[in-house]
Amino acid sequence: MDRKVTLAHGDGGELAHKLIQQIFVSAFGNETASHFDSAFLSVGSGEIAVTTDSFVVHPLFFPGGDIGKLAVSGTVNDLSVAGASPLFLTAGFIIEEGFPLSDLRTIVRSLAREAEQAGVHVVAGDTKVVEKGGTDGLYINTTGIGLKRKETGIAPERMEAGDAVILSGTAGDHGIAILAARGELGLITDLKSDCAPLNQMIDRLFQDGIDIKMMRDPTRGGVATTLVEIAEDFGAQIELTESRIPIRNEVKGACDILGFDPLYLANEGKVLLIVADKDRGRALEVLHATPEGSQATLIGKVTGRGHGQLVLETPLGSKRRLHRLSGMMLPRIC
Amino acid sequence: MDRKVTLAHGDGGELAHKLIQQIFVSAFGNETASHFDSAFLSVGSGEIAVTTDSFVVHPLFFPGGDIGKLAVSGTVNDLSVAGASPLFLTAGFIIEEGFPLSDLRTIVRSLAREAEQAGVHVVAGDTKVVEKGGTDGLYINTTGIGLKRKETGIAPERMEAGDAVILSGTAGDHGIAILAARGELGLITDLKSDCAPLNQMIDRLFQDGIDIKMMRDPTRGGVATTLVEIAEDFGAQIELTESRIPIRNEVKGACDILGFDPLYLANEGKVLLIVADKDRGRALEVLHATPEGSQATLIGKVTGRGHGQLVLETPLGSKRRLHRLSGMMLPRIC
Repeated sequence: MDRKVTLAHGDGGELAHKLIQQIFVSAFGNETASHFDSAFLSVGSGEIAVTTDSFVVHPLFFPGGDIGKLAVSGTVNDLSVAGASPLFLTAGFIIEEGFPLSDLRTIVRSLAREAEQAGVHVVAGDTKVVEKGGTDGLYINTTGIGLKRKETGIAPERMEAGDAVILSGTAGDHGIAILAARGELGLITDLKSDCAPLNQMIDRLFQDGIDIKMMRDPTRGGVATTLVEIAEDFGAQIELTESRIPIRNEVKGACDILGFDPLYLANEGKVLLIVADKDRGRALEVLHATPEGSQATLIGKVTGRGHGQLVLETPLGSKRRLHRLSGMMLPRIC
Repeated sequence: MDRKVTLAHGDGGELAHKLIQQIFVSAFGNETASHFDSAFLSVGSGEIAVTTDSFVVHPLFFPGGDIGKLAVSGTVNDLSVAGASPLFLTAGFIIEEGFPLSDLRTIVRSLAREAEQAGVHVVAGDTKVVEKGGTDGLYINTTGIGLKRKETGIAPERMEAGDAVILSGTAGDHGIAILAARGELGLITDLKSDCAPLNQMIDRLFQDGIDIKMMRDPTRGGVATTLVEIAEDFGAQIELTESRIPIRNEVKGACDILGFDPLYLANEGKVLLIVADKDRGRALEVLHATPEGSQATLIGKVTGRGHGQLVLETPLGSKRRLHRLSGMMLPRIC
């Protein structure tokens, strides 16, 4: 087999067949290349949930993960926070001519391994090859299909004053890890991306009967933008206590140097939860018992309904309103 | 609104929100940008079918369609030939910084219109923006979800000597239309791409009870590669009569000049059918009554089972074996 991807790998002929057979079919356990094209699935009764995401992260490999792991985490988490159990993934690859086959194999295996650990099946895929300069290495789209959980209680209209706002761990790790991996900013750090599928952690919360009213993964735009969306889209006043928000020292340091606000940095393995006040202690207990949620923290509360806004209480006791991320901070972060 | 896509349109913040709200949500009829991210769907009981495809066609606009129309046709047809009724689509857009917003709007509307005409709903989407040079304009991934038809009779192991091989129209239109649209080959022609969703045409065949044993859409790799795959994957001997294969004069002419074989050129609005001999007349009648199938033709037959191969009978009466497309002919054709 050639050592680089060529345009002929994308033309639907002999080489394309071999590429799919040798790299994709073997990784995902589909029977044949023909079966990689489309799949029939039994999902049982009930509503299905669907989400789609394209991944264009640069660089493709970074501390804590790679684009393959990210493509599983991002889509699995989208389904999970929507209140669904992820079951199936499709994976579409757009590959640049000249891309090393060994890197492709590594990424495909990483995607397959991560999917297996998350308990989701990669059921269909597609590869396209574009000429050199037509893309930047590799992009992946994953579409996730899950089954809607029955009676989750997730309903943003149920948010009320007193509800707890919980972040499942430290903010901004993914954003700074990617920046550091680019090597453009003279930033040297041991920090890893938090990139991880969270469906099993979220399962525990439901199994324990925690009253979750709203859940989101704070990816692009970070914790602040995600909470502004929740506040504005569903008319909730939310107040964060800045000093409570867990942020690693490496992230704090990098943000100080670079002039970024960690609340606007992307996370790829975190969830924001709005839970009934009575359940906040138990929610934190459940989260702390999971590897992904060991640093979960109560970071704020819902203070009322009506005209939705997000307010940050600073360590000095003053309050300021936060808005959505505005203007480019970090392209190609996921 | 700005007139070009900027990196800030992709960062998950304020501009990204506006872009999705103003261009995508309005075109697809989702309620809000938040609802564009993921969707809950009722599919009824039974197995669902899933397929995914990325579209990287160059140029984005071509006679007979654009990348938006193609992204619907390709995925709808994949589901249809697998024996499913397409119901839902997701759409993931990877957009190059600087891409004109007016072109984006045109493409998104084209995708929305085509989906509506095909009777499928665009239920979730995603946009990413990459910096100038990071991609070539715009790529789209669509993932299709359908419901498996009950008792279709599609089962390649049922193929037997005597079965008819039907092509639903002329071969190679899409390939030559794209080449001509590139303007690189000095080719001037009125030829249009055949790009079209075929689910409604295929519906008619099932409604009429035609015994379809196998169905495929001959896209990348063309009629020849698709039939070689059917022959080799399922152990069928298939014989084509070259003189019967309908090919437009413009396609013949272009192939003569360019040295291409129309049997290896991509089609985006054609289906290859293997039907029981007893039903071939009726299948052609049904197809001829549809706009997409008006030029459907019997192009060959299954001659036996066992070691699968595809054989072409030339106008001179000699026979030669055809193989999969080998080596690059046309990158970025879909």
